[in-house]
Amino acid sequence: MTANELIRKKRDGGELSSEELQFVIDGFVKGKIPEYQMSAFLMAAYFRGMAPGETSTFTKLMLHSGEVVDLSAIPGVKVDKHSTGGVGDKISLPLAPIVAACGVPVPMISGRGLGHTGGTLDKLESIPGFRTSLTIAEYKKIAAEVGLVMIGQTKEIAPADKKMYALRDVTATVECIPLIAGSIMSKKLAEGIDALVLDVKTGRGAFMQTHEQAVKLATTLVGIGNSFGKETIGFITDMNQPLGYAIGNWLEVVESVECLRGRDVQDVMEVTLVLGGMMVKLGKKASTLREGMDRCKEVVANGKAYEKFLQLVKRQGGDITFVEHPEKYPRSKYSEDITASSEGFITSIDPLEIGLTSIVLGAGRTKIDDVIDPKAGIILRKKIGDPVAKGEKIATLYTDDKNVVGSSAERIKNAIVAGSAKPVRSPLIISQVDKNGAAPFKV
Amino acid sequence: MTANELIRKKRDGGELSSEELQFVIDGFVKGKIPEYQMSAFLMAAYFRGMAPGETSTFTKLMLHSGEVVDLSAIPGVKVDKHSTGGVGDKISLPLAPIVAACGVPVPMISGRGLGHTGGTLDKLESIPGFRTSLTIAEYKKIAAEVGLVMIGQTKEIAPADKKMYALRDVTATVECIPLIAGSIMSKKLAEGIDALVLDVKTGRGAFMQTHEQAVKLATTLVGIGNSFGKETIGFITDMNQPLGYAIGNWLEVVESVECLRGRDVQDVMEVTLVLGGMMVKLGKKASTLREGMDRCKEVVANGKAYEKFLQLVKRQGGDITFVEHPEKYPRSKYSEDITASSEGFITSIDPLEIGLTSIVLGAGRTKIDDVIDPKAGIILRKKIGDPVAKGEKIATLYTDDKNVVGSSAERIKNAIVAGSAKPVRSPLIISQVDKNGAAPFKV
Repeated sequence: MTANELIRKKRDGGELSSEELQFVIDGFVKGKIPEYQMSAFLMAAYFRGMAPGETSTFTKLMLHSGEVVDLSAIPGVKVDKHSTGGVGDKISLPLAPIVAACGVPVPMISGRGLGHTGGTLDKLESIPGFRTSLTIAEYKKIAAEVGLVMIGQTKEIAPADKKMYALRDVTATVECIPLIAGSIMSKKLAEGIDALVLDVKTGRGAFMQTHEQAVKLATTLVGIGNSFGKETIGFITDMNQPLGYAIGNWLEVVESVECLRGRDVQDVMEVTLVLGGMMVKLGKKASTLREGMDRCKEVVANGKAYEKFLQLVKRQGGDITFVEHPEKYPRSKYSEDITASSEGFITSIDPLEIGLTSIVLGAGRTKIDDVIDPKAGIILRKKIGDPVAKGEKIATLYTDDKNVVGSSAERIKNAIVAGSAKPVRSPLIISQVDKNGAAPFKV
Repeated sequence: MTANELIRKKRDGGELSSEELQFVIDGFVKGKIPEYQMSAFLMAAYFRGMAPGETSTFTKLMLHSGEVVDLSAIPGVKVDKHSTGGVGDKISLPLAPIVAACGVPVPMISGRGLGHTGGTLDKLESIPGFRTSLTIAEYKKIAAEVGLVMIGQTKEIAPADKKMYALRDVTATVECIPLIAGSIMSKKLAEGIDALVLDVKTGRGAFMQTHEQAVKLATTLVGIGNSFGKETIGFITDMNQPLGYAIGNWLEVVESVECLRGRDVQDVMEVTLVLGGMMVKLGKKASTLREGMDRCKEVVANGKAYEKFLQLVKRQGGDITFVEHPEKYPRSKYSEDITASSEGFITSIDPLEIGLTSIVLGAGRTKIDDVIDPKAGIILRKKIGDPVAKGEKIATLYTDDKNVVGSSAERIKNAIVAGSAKPVRSPLIISQVDKNGAAPFKV
């Protein structure tokens, strides 16, 4: 068996056996298979795909390249959520404490912003003092004490994925469903979870631009999860406008905290309650999705979810006075309001353009070592379907970089389009995918 | 412009501009683009191919990565031949001196054995003293003096191709027509030729197993040659049995010398005369292919072709006494006759199996640093269509390795199949490909 033969096999559409995949992945991790062979293999996989069995084996090999955390000492069914990423997608922040407050332990390992989308870690780190780089031992300890922990990937978790992702990133082999699925699931399965809920975004602000692609990815992810004996349910949700009003790290923390304190940011709370309801159901604290959603609403209403969030922030080193009094937080040096140039209804808000503009304002990275400005970003004042008067404020931008104010205001203005007819609202949660396949979502 | 973007463009089926291809090839040669990006690019090119303009530009970049030899000081139209390689394919050995004897200068840079096929360099080097590693200056000098020179690739010739081929060889990206064509043509165009004849083999012993693939490759090669202003004619020839009777380096030299001295080894001479006739026509020493073929027959009959070969061997350091008295050459320690187990007609001789067995006997390499035994190989005693009696000798093997005698004899026996009906002879020279496309061959 040589790497060249296995590249050829994949190139010619063959299905690699477990032994063959192990030869490739282990060889790559151990440096026996050079990067130039791995990248050729990955490009062949891009064109030829992988069979479900191959994808599961691939995931298993990535998973077992590192430590698989054992949380069996913590009672209860441990459940996490993964989102494929969107603009203004702060769902993890209200969701995790809500579910934990319902009594379902949530061990969560998150990522940073990628492309035009934000990352949970960057958001959490905008809270002064909040530490996301914890050891596995600390992770287990906090999960046990708080019933909730939110950290970044450690070097112990799926090192094969880390090495492979770095290579994929520079060889145009990122956009490949089995590789994406293996990367996501190897990290999630390493967390010590018993069940998983997936939020696969679709639309202009998502990596999966069509519903068909999103269903394909969700089906692959659900298939892998179930093949590991972890009940996995996916939802396909709309990303054709940013989620909520806030885009930017601290701005999104503030909006999340408001949601935890009872503010009904309609789309944020709709997604949070459905994902949360399903997590509570999978965590055996409710027997139906509806019941799970009701439990989630309760812990928001009675303040337990907010308390859980404060407990987490405090336990991970964050200064809760900023959470309790956001007005204490430093302000951006520059802000500018964007106003409507005609009256009517908002018909579209381009999430990709809003996401990219927020990066320019300082809310994201264009290079791996860029430093994020946690204050920077955009607050939308309107969402799709809202009526708007000429000259009315539709968004505000925040930045410390004077040079980008004018051009960014222009981009935001162009990204928010108004028309004379009120648009028909399309569903936010489109489909549900489980082991039986995809079906239109209904509660 | 980044390598990642250009990999993506090729991956998505785009056509790279000259500037973009230059960025990739120059970057690779200069080490600015790492091998792991180049191999991903090559795999994307494997799946997506290249447009004719891209293939020409690609070839030009490989060509100009090194020296392009200037032979304009030598009068006449310089013509070379390239074969895609087969088993028993010693055609260059009789062909080059025949064409040179007709007054057409033949500057030839050849390669070594590859896979199951032999290489002209290895054959020439079986002549004691024959030097194929010459400098460009010596190459030019011998071409001018002898009207014929046969050397190996130098470090000055298309270094980009050398570096890229080494990478393709270990990343399953060899079998890609634009890449094959660019590799072949960049080296041939560097020789200083004015015109080129191609022998594209098809069949079980060839790299292009189907006629369709062979035509595709020939069309690409002819297109590149003509785009560089070098008249290029291709022939698709059959490789469903070895060419001639001898397989193995010195054994093939002997058979070639016999042909030059007038022995009519039917298939070897048929291919030699057609390719030679076309080279003489392209070299303006005949006005039709038939006239060119007649000129070739003349120089064999009057001994001038054989004289030219002796002159070349002598000039490149070879001991012509071995050429004139092959019986002086050392013998293999072991030889074994293979006999027919039934009577009838020979219906097939598997060239791939014969080629692979000759390697085991010592005639080729399985690793780059294997040492070839020039004496080793196989002499067929029968060709397809010949009648055979039970127990009659059908082949003889030669080797210095006692351990492989029995198993090789068995393989050869199985590779030569007899049946009761005399098979219909299929054409040896199947098609001709020129700038107007492919057509069935006729003189």
